[in-house]
Amino acid sequence: MTDDHPVVEFWYEFASTYSYPAAMRVEARAAARGVTVRWQPFLLGPIFRAQGWDSSPFNLQPVKGAYMWRDMARICDAEGLSFVRPDPFPQNGLQAARLALALPDDGARAAFSRAVYAAEFGAGMDLTDGSALSALLTEQGHDPDQIWAAAQSDAVKSGLRAQTEAAVAHGIFGAPMFRSEDGEIFWGYDRLDQALEWVLTRNR
Amino acid sequence: MTDDHPVVEFWYEFASTYSYPAAMRVEARAAARGVTVRWQPFLLGPIFRAQGWDSSPFNLQPVKGAYMWRDMARICDAEGLSFVRPDPFPQNGLQAARLALALPDDGARAAFSRAVYAAEFGAGMDLTDGSALSALLTEQGHDPDQIWAAAQSDAVKSGLRAQTEAAVAHGIFGAPMFRSEDGEIFWGYDRLDQALEWVLTRNR
Repeated sequence: MTDDHPVVEFWYEFASTYSYPAAMRVEARAAARGVTVRWQPFLLGPIFRAQGWDSSPFNLQPVKGAYMWRDMARICDAEGLSFVRPDPFPQNGLQAARLALALPDDGARAAFSRAVYAAEFGAGMDLTDGSALSALLTEQGHDPDQIWAAAQSDAVKSGLRAQTEAAVAHGIFGAPMFRSEDGEIFWGYDRLDQALEWVLTRNR
Repeated sequence: MTDDHPVVEFWYEFASTYSYPAAMRVEARAAARGVTVRWQPFLLGPIFRAQGWDSSPFNLQPVKGAYMWRDMARICDAEGLSFVRPDPFPQNGLQAARLALALPDDGARAAFSRAVYAAEFGAGMDLTDGSALSALLTEQGHDPDQIWAAAQSDAVKSGLRAQTEAAVAHGIFGAPMFRSEDGEIFWGYDRLDQALEWVLTRNR
């Protein structure tokens, strides 16, 4: 970055429910406080599998899952966001994450990521639907063929694996996670303001 | 209750880390908004064991545990609360929960519960130390022998089992949990204000 703004890293997984309101709100709330957001897609699947989980913890613990669905509905209602329960849940976010990583983090990655979340959790889009992802790329002013080619390149594939390895190295075990450059992590949509406060305090 | 105040139920477990700041702050923050708190001790152990867990999820998932300890330190720092990591963790909160349930929910249960949390998480008290629990009862103006006798009665023992069964029936899977009389549940210390807002909105 060439500016002097404090920075918050936003670590997100397209399958993650609470990442949806976080993705839709992080940029505006950070900008309002002069904080720059770095968009960091990664995959939770490998992290969960390393713990022996073969699905979302919200599926493995149905009582906790029931709470999450109710809580998501409340949050989206409060934030004025449409909300439909993805089917199946969790969605497979691999291709969307590769596409996001193939886009530069200069606003393009953020805008595409928000479009994916809005289509997935706001309108029921299946993340394995390549033509629907292509349509989102076109809407964002990109050439879908070009971005798909980049997303399937070894550079982006290994880049996404490196993102997930970096997440593990940072102590990240869930999403969304906000991270400061001095290594503090804050887990969950409801910790966005706390994370912004942290990076602002450290930059004073 | 004979007043017209809206009510929030505070479901807590003495072994639960995030229940500590919740217990220390719920009464003052509820009172400031005209909300009455009902103190509902219960046990998480049977709920965790029913899922096949033989310890706290923070022990079973050490990366998540590391985050929790850091997060607790940040929260307690922000709230001006002393914080020491209980050893062993989790503590066995059975006797403290029975003592709390033996006290009436007219302020006595709340004051004793806060004293237990402050001693446990603020000063390292072992919750299986019966004489330390007796000293807290004495400090609160109670006759320890009388409260211990009540705590060991069949009424209180079965009452605590009924509390835990009620928690399960309410969809409670962790602590602290705030619950409205219309059945909404809010999980975690960081949801206290949201729970208060809910019960206030429903009572307008």
